[in-house]
Amino acid sequence: MKKNVALEQKYLNTALKLAQKAASKNEVPVGALVLYQDKVISRAYNLREKKHDPTAHAEILALRSAARKLKSWRLTDCTLVVTLEPCPMCLAACQQARITKVIYGAQDLKGGALSLGYRLHEDSKTNHRFSVEWVNMPECGKVLSGFFRNRRA
Amino acid sequence: MKKNVALEQKYLNTALKLAQKAASKNEVPVGALVLYQDKVISRAYNLREKKHDPTAHAEILALRSAARKLKSWRLTDCTLVVTLEPCPMCLAACQQARITKVIYGAQDLKGGALSLGYRLHEDSKTNHRFSVEWVNMPECGKVLSGFFRNRRA
Repeated sequence: MKKNVALEQKYLNTALKLAQKAASKNEVPVGALVLYQDKVISRAYNLREKKHDPTAHAEILALRSAARKLKSWRLTDCTLVVTLEPCPMCLAACQQARITKVIYGAQDLKGGALSLGYRLHEDSKTNHRFSVEWVNMPECGKVLSGFFRNRRA
Repeated sequence: MKKNVALEQKYLNTALKLAQKAASKNEVPVGALVLYQDKVISRAYNLREKKHDPTAHAEILALRSAARKLKSWRLTDCTLVVTLEPCPMCLAACQQARITKVIYGAQDLKGGALSLGYRLHEDSKTNHRFSVEWVNMPECGKVLSGFFRNRRA
């Protein structure tokens, strides 16, 4: 995907709608999609509670679905777009999948891989490097803070 | 699981048999199981090629299966036993699953989370810490080197 902020925001908006779907099912609202040749080939949202699956973050589900579609665990030339900064598990899964690029809309200062200092994507000791970019979209964070505020109320 | 080397080796042996099963299916031979109250509640081996799933490492499959069995993504009081040092994705998945302990049988100097310096399990900035122990069982490494030697031949 070439650098095109309007396009990135369009995809983040699609991911945001997926996050809102998660919220409506009482799941922490994070949404993700995978792009291949500028087409969306998978969409997912967090389903950890419903699936009883510690790995069912939006990113993992989107990666797995994309790989099923491409019939390969190697997601070469694919971009992952996600509303929230990926946790270490999800960033490492992107590396396992040989993803080319990750774009996220809101920082996660407490749980995000980059925020915690796990910069796997640029570690020359690993067998795959990729770019990770924060495209600030405040709505991606607001859907989360709103969800937790409602839950506390 | 209390510290009991004979018992740890018994479980590693079970995981090793799972790894050998993976090899017979042309998958990189890594096997894993999850213990809960000293009982094996899930067994898995790497199926990345067959499943077209970048996340289908033995550990992830064993964690997911255990969580389905316990009907909870929280694997509190569970131990993961795996033949090979977990990669960063799998170590982070153990953290997501709130695993209590990880035991592995062979180091992975090129791809293991600890060997690469990603010591997530003892990072006080994260919301869950757990113990990770190497119980040296040379067979767990040999099944891998044998597999790759055959593949090159």
